[in-house]
Amino acid sequence: MRTVDLIRRKRDGEELSGKEIAFLIDGYTQGVIPDYQMAAFLMAVFSNSMSEREVGTLTECMLHSGETIDLSSVPGVKVDKHSTGGVGDKTSLISAPLAAACGAIVPMISGRALGHTGGTLDKLESIPGFRTNLTVDEFREQLRMYGLAFMGQTAEVAPADAKLYALRDATATVESIPLIASSIMSKKLAEGLDSLVLDVKVGSGAFLKKQVEARRLAQIMVTIGRRADKRVQALITDMNQPLGFAVGNALEVMEVSQTLQNAGPTDLTRLSLELAARMIYLGRITMTLDDAREMATSKLLDGSGYRKFKEVIQAQGGNANVLDRFDLLPNATGVREITSPRNGYISGIDAECIGQASGLIGASRDTKEDTIDPAVGMILEVKVGQKIDQGAVLCRIYYTREDNLDGAAQLVEDAFRISSNPPEERELILEVVG
Amino acid sequence: MRTVDLIRRKRDGEELSGKEIAFLIDGYTQGVIPDYQMAAFLMAVFSNSMSEREVGTLTECMLHSGETIDLSSVPGVKVDKHSTGGVGDKTSLISAPLAAACGAIVPMISGRALGHTGGTLDKLESIPGFRTNLTVDEFREQLRMYGLAFMGQTAEVAPADAKLYALRDATATVESIPLIASSIMSKKLAEGLDSLVLDVKVGSGAFLKKQVEARRLAQIMVTIGRRADKRVQALITDMNQPLGFAVGNALEVMEVSQTLQNAGPTDLTRLSLELAARMIYLGRITMTLDDAREMATSKLLDGSGYRKFKEVIQAQGGNANVLDRFDLLPNATGVREITSPRNGYISGIDAECIGQASGLIGASRDTKEDTIDPAVGMILEVKVGQKIDQGAVLCRIYYTREDNLDGAAQLVEDAFRISSNPPEERELILEVVG
Repeated sequence: MRTVDLIRRKRDGEELSGKEIAFLIDGYTQGVIPDYQMAAFLMAVFSNSMSEREVGTLTECMLHSGETIDLSSVPGVKVDKHSTGGVGDKTSLISAPLAAACGAIVPMISGRALGHTGGTLDKLESIPGFRTNLTVDEFREQLRMYGLAFMGQTAEVAPADAKLYALRDATATVESIPLIASSIMSKKLAEGLDSLVLDVKVGSGAFLKKQVEARRLAQIMVTIGRRADKRVQALITDMNQPLGFAVGNALEVMEVSQTLQNAGPTDLTRLSLELAARMIYLGRITMTLDDAREMATSKLLDGSGYRKFKEVIQAQGGNANVLDRFDLLPNATGVREITSPRNGYISGIDAECIGQASGLIGASRDTKEDTIDPAVGMILEVKVGQKIDQGAVLCRIYYTREDNLDGAAQLVEDAFRISSNPPEERELILEVVG
Repeated sequence: MRTVDLIRRKRDGEELSGKEIAFLIDGYTQGVIPDYQMAAFLMAVFSNSMSEREVGTLTECMLHSGETIDLSSVPGVKVDKHSTGGVGDKTSLISAPLAAACGAIVPMISGRALGHTGGTLDKLESIPGFRTNLTVDEFREQLRMYGLAFMGQTAEVAPADAKLYALRDATATVESIPLIASSIMSKKLAEGLDSLVLDVKVGSGAFLKKQVEARRLAQIMVTIGRRADKRVQALITDMNQPLGFAVGNALEVMEVSQTLQNAGPTDLTRLSLELAARMIYLGRITMTLDDAREMATSKLLDGSGYRKFKEVIQAQGGNANVLDRFDLLPNATGVREITSPRNGYISGIDAECIGQASGLIGASRDTKEDTIDPAVGMILEVKVGQKIDQGAVLCRIYYTREDNLDGAAQLVEDAFRISSNPPEERELILEVVG
C-alpha cells in the first residue's frame, strides 16, 4: 500500500477501505507518513468528502490511537453534552449542573477557545482557584460524589486527533464535515460515556453556515455514536447572533449565574433547559422527554442547578462566592459603548464579527500558545428583532488594554445590521436529529 | 498575508492575485512556507484549477526563482521542442537533428524517464561515452558550432519547480493542468529560446487521458509563451498506442537511426517530420509551414538529419558508430515473445501498460534514485489496425534480469486488445493550437 495511491484515490472521489484508512491514520500518528502527504489527503477529503463508512473507520482509528477513560466504576448512566462551538455559548455551564441536579452523571471533558469561538475550560478558569487539570482518578471520584466534574482533554486521549487538528488548522481543512465529525466523536467515545447530546451550531457565528451542512454533520455523528452503542441526539441550533448577551470568559460566568437563578436571557435559558432535558432523558433519569423537560425546569426554578454548580466549583478548588459577588471575578478596567447610527430594528448581529472582536481584545486566542484575558469581552444590549432609536447603546465593550480596541469597536459596529422593518422571526432550535 | 488564508481561498475556488501567488511560491522556495501547507495548496489547485492569469503568475514566479540561460551570444533564432511525455516517444532525437540540419538553432534541454514515460537524456546516455552534463559554456559553444546540443536541466534553473515537482509526486497532484503548464513553461522560458514547439500527448499512455484536457493544457502553455514574446505552437497527438515499435533506451536509439535513414515506422516518421517542420517554421528558416515541411522531408531523404545527429553525438563524447552498428549499444541478454491468443485485429495497445512493463524490467525508474538498464525494453511487432493470426508474435520483451519478467509479460499481454472487426482509424495528430 502506498500513501500516494490512497491520496490519488480520494482525490478522484473513490471510497477507501477500512484497512486503507487505518494505514493512513496509524502511519501518520506513528510519524511514518509525513505531514505533507496527510495535508494533501485532508484537502482531498475536504473536496470529495467521505462516505459514512469511511468516517466511521476514521473515527475508530483516531479513538484507538490513544487511551480511553474507564468510568465503569462510577454507578449510573454517564451522559455528556458537546457543542460544535459558538459565540456566547455558555450552555454547558448551565445544562450540566441542571442535569446533574436531576441525578444524571455528567463527565464533562471540554475544550478551549480557538478562533472566534469560546471554550468551556477558559470560562471556568476565570473563576479564581478553579482547577481543570484533574487526574482521571480525581475526575472519577468527583463524579461519584457530585455527579458532575469538568476537566480538559488529556494528551493520552485520541492523540491522532490532536495531531490532525493542528495540521487541519494550518492547512484550511478545518471546515470539513467528515473531519469535524470524526474529531468530535473520537474524543467523546474515548470518555467512557453512555449517552451524548450534541449541539450543532449553524449560521454566521458557527463553522457551518448552512443548515443542510449542519444536518449532515449531525446525522453522521449520531450514526457513529449509535454504531458504538451510545444513545445520541443532536440539536441543530441557530448561531446567527450570539447566544445570550455576554461574550467573554468572566462575563459569561456572570450570565451563567444569572441564568441558573432564572434571571438570564430568554434564548440562553430556553436552549440550556432543552439540552439539560435531553441529557436527563438520554441519561435514563425519566421515561419521557416531557418528564425530563419538567424536571429540568423545576430544578432551575428551585435553585438546585445553581447550588450544584456552586458545589462543583468548590470541589474543583474555585471560589464559589463569585456566583453571588461578581466583583470577585476578573473585571475589565475600561468600557466603550457602541451606539446605533439610526432608528430601526436590529435585523442581524453577526456572531462571527462579535467573536472576532472579543478575540482581538484578548478573550480568545489565535494560536494555542496565546494567553487569554479572562476579564474582557462584550455585553450586547439588544437582540435581533428589537426596535432601537438612533444613539441607543447596542453593545458595551469591556477591555483592559487599548491595543486593538479601535479594531474591535469597528468589528462590533459592522456586526449590527439595522433595517426599517422588523426582521422575520428565527427559530433558535431548528431541528432535532436522532 | 497568511498562508492558511490563501489556501482557504483557493480551496473555495477563488482567484488569487499575483502578489498572493508570489508570496506562496517565494515563501515555499525560501523554506518559510512548510511542505504541508504547500501540499494542501496544491491539492486545492488540483480540485479548483487556476485562471490563465494565475497560471501566468505562477510560471513567472517559478521562472524567477532561479537562473536563466543567456543564449543571446549565439546567432540565430533558438527553437526548442518539448513533449509532455509518452511511451516510445523518441521524436526529439529525430526532429531536432532535422531542424538543425535545416539551419535552426536547437538548444535541447531535456528530462529523464519517470514513471511509465521515457526521457530523452536516458536514451542519449545509452550511447557509450555520451555526456549530457555539459556546462552552459560548452552548451553555447556547441550550439554555435553545430546548431544543436543536448543537456540536462541544471539545479540553478527554476529551483521552485524542482521542489514543487517532488512534492507533487508524493502528494498525487501531478496531473493538474495549471501545475503541468507552469512546470513546463517555467523551465522552457528559462532556456533563452525564441520559439517553442509543444507536443501534448493524450490517451492511455499520457498524463492526460482526454482531448479536452490536452487542449486546455496546450492553450494555457501557448498563452504563457506568447505573453513572454515567444512564438509557440502545440500539437495534440495520440498516445493510445506507443509511438513507433521500440520502447526502451538503446532500442529507441536504434529506431531513431533507422528513422533518420528513412526506414523507420510510419507514425514516428510522420510526427517527427511535422514537429521538425514546425521548428523550422517557428525558427524563421522558411516563410511558410509548407516550405518547412518540404525542407524537413528533403533533409530526411538526403541523410542530412542523420549526419547531423552523428556529428552531435561525437561532439558530446559519444560513439557515433552506434547508429550503424547496433552491437556497439547495450544489448539485452534474453528475449521473450508475447503471442496472440486469437485471430483478429489489433484494436488497442495500452501505452501505459507497455510503459509500466518496460519500467518493471528496468527501462525506467520509480524514484529519482533508481538506476536504469539501458539495454532492456520491448519491440512491438504490430500496430493498431493490423490483422493478426493466433500465435503470431505481438511483442518481444528484451531483458537482462528475470526478476520482474513474468509481471512485465503479464502487463504486455494485458496491453493488447484484439477484436473481430477492424477498429476505426485514429488520427495521430489530433489538433494544432497556436
